[in-house]
Amino acid sequence: MSKGEHTKTRILQQAAELFNQQGYAGSSMSDIMRVTGLQKGGIYNHFPSKDELALQAFDFAIACVSKHYRSALRSKSNAVERLKAIIGVFSNFADNPPIQGGCPLLNTAVESDDAHPALRKRTQQAMNSWLNLIRRIIETGIAKGEIHPEVNADEMATIITATLEGAIMISKLYGDSIHMQRAVNHLNQYIESYL
Amino acid sequence: MSKGEHTKTRILQQAAELFNQQGYAGSSMSDIMRVTGLQKGGIYNHFPSKDELALQAFDFAIACVSKHYRSALRSKSNAVERLKAIIGVFSNFADNPPIQGGCPLLNTAVESDDAHPALRKRTQQAMNSWLNLIRRIIETGIAKGEIHPEVNADEMATIITATLEGAIMISKLYGDSIHMQRAVNHLNQYIESYL
Ligand SMILES: [Mg+2]
Ligand SMILES: [Mg+2]
Repeated sequence: MSKGEHTKTRILQQAAELFNQQGYAGSSMSDIMRVTGLQKGGIYNHFPSKDELALQAFDFAIACVSKHYRSALRSKSNAVERLKAIIGVFSNFADNPPIQGGCPLLNTAVESDDAHPALRKRTQQAMNSWLNLIRRIIETGIAKGEIHPEVNADEMATIITATLEGAIMISKLYGDSIHMQRAVNHLNQYIESYL
Repeated sequence: MSKGEHTKTRILQQAAELFNQQGYAGSSMSDIMRVTGLQKGGIYNHFPSKDELALQAFDFAIACVSKHYRSALRSKSNAVERLKAIIGVFSNFADNPPIQGGCPLLNTAVESDDAHPALRKRTQQAMNSWLNLIRRIIETGIAKGEIHPEVNADEMATIITATLEGAIMISKLYGDSIHMQRAVNHLNQYIESYL
C-alpha cells in the first residue's frame, strides 16, 4: 500500500467511527479534521466532498462488519449452526462493535431514510446483501434437510434482522447488553422451532 | 389556549416532525425557521435554545404517539388483545406515522446514544415508560390467567419492542411495509404460543 493509500484508509476508518457515533449530519468538517489530525486540504486530497467521504466511509464500515461474519461462518457448514454463528457475532456488537457506535446499517438507515437519498440507496444495497446472506443460508439448509421445508426464507431473514437491530438499539440506549441477550435466546429458540 | 401557547404548540409539532425526519443535528436553525415560518426571535421567545426545543419536541412526539396507544387500548381488557392492539397500532407507523419520520423512540435513541447525553436520558425515560406499559399488560394477563405463568414479562417486553423497532427501520429503509407485516405475524404467533 502506498503512503497515499495508507492515508486514505486511515481517513476512512476514523471517519467511519465518527459518523457511526455522531451521524453524518452531526459530524462537521472540523470534527473530521480533529479525528484524522489532517487539514481540510489533506482530506479533500482523497475525497472530493464530505458527501463522497460519507458514502465511502459507510462502505468501509460495512466491509469491516462483514469481515466478522465471514470469519465466523468459515468453520460452519450446517445451516442452523451458520445462523447461530451470525447471531452470535451480531450479539457482540452492543458491547464490542467492530466500528465504534454500533451497527452502521441501523444507524445509517435511520439517519438517511427521510433525509439523504444517496446514502439511503447505499444502505438499501448493504441491507440487500445482508438479507440475501441470511436467506441463502436458510435456502441451503432447506435443500439439505437441515431446516423445515415450509419455512419462508424471506420471512425468517426479516425476523432475525429486525430482532437483532431493534435489540442493539435498546441495549445501546441503556448501555446494557441484557436486551441483546434476550433477543439472541429468542432467535435461537425461534430457529430451533423450525428444524 | 392563549395565542402564545398556541404558537408554542405549533412550533413543537413542526419541529418534532422536522427532527424526526432529519435528526436533531441535521436540522439547522434556518430549517426550523423555514418549517415554522417564524424568525429566530419568534422561536427563542418560546425556547431558550435549540437544545431545549429538541428536548421538548421529543416529549411532544412521544406524547403524540402515546395517545394512539392509549386510544387503541381503551376498548380492550384481555391481555392478549391489548398486546395485539399495541402491535397493530405500531405496525401502521411504517406507512402512516402520527409524527412524520417514523418512530421517535428509535430515531432519537440511535442519534443520541453516543452523541447527546441529555437527549439520550430523555429517550431512556420514554423507553422505560414504553417497556413498563407492555410489562404491566403481561403481568396483569398472568395474574388473570390469560397468559402462561412461566412467561418472563421483561423478556417478552424486550422481544416485542426489538422486533417492532427493527422492522420499522427495515420497512422505512425500503419504503415497503412487508417487513413490518412479517414482524406483526411473527409477534402474534409468539404471543399465542404463551397462552
Ligand atoms: Mg430517519
Ligand atoms: Mg448512535
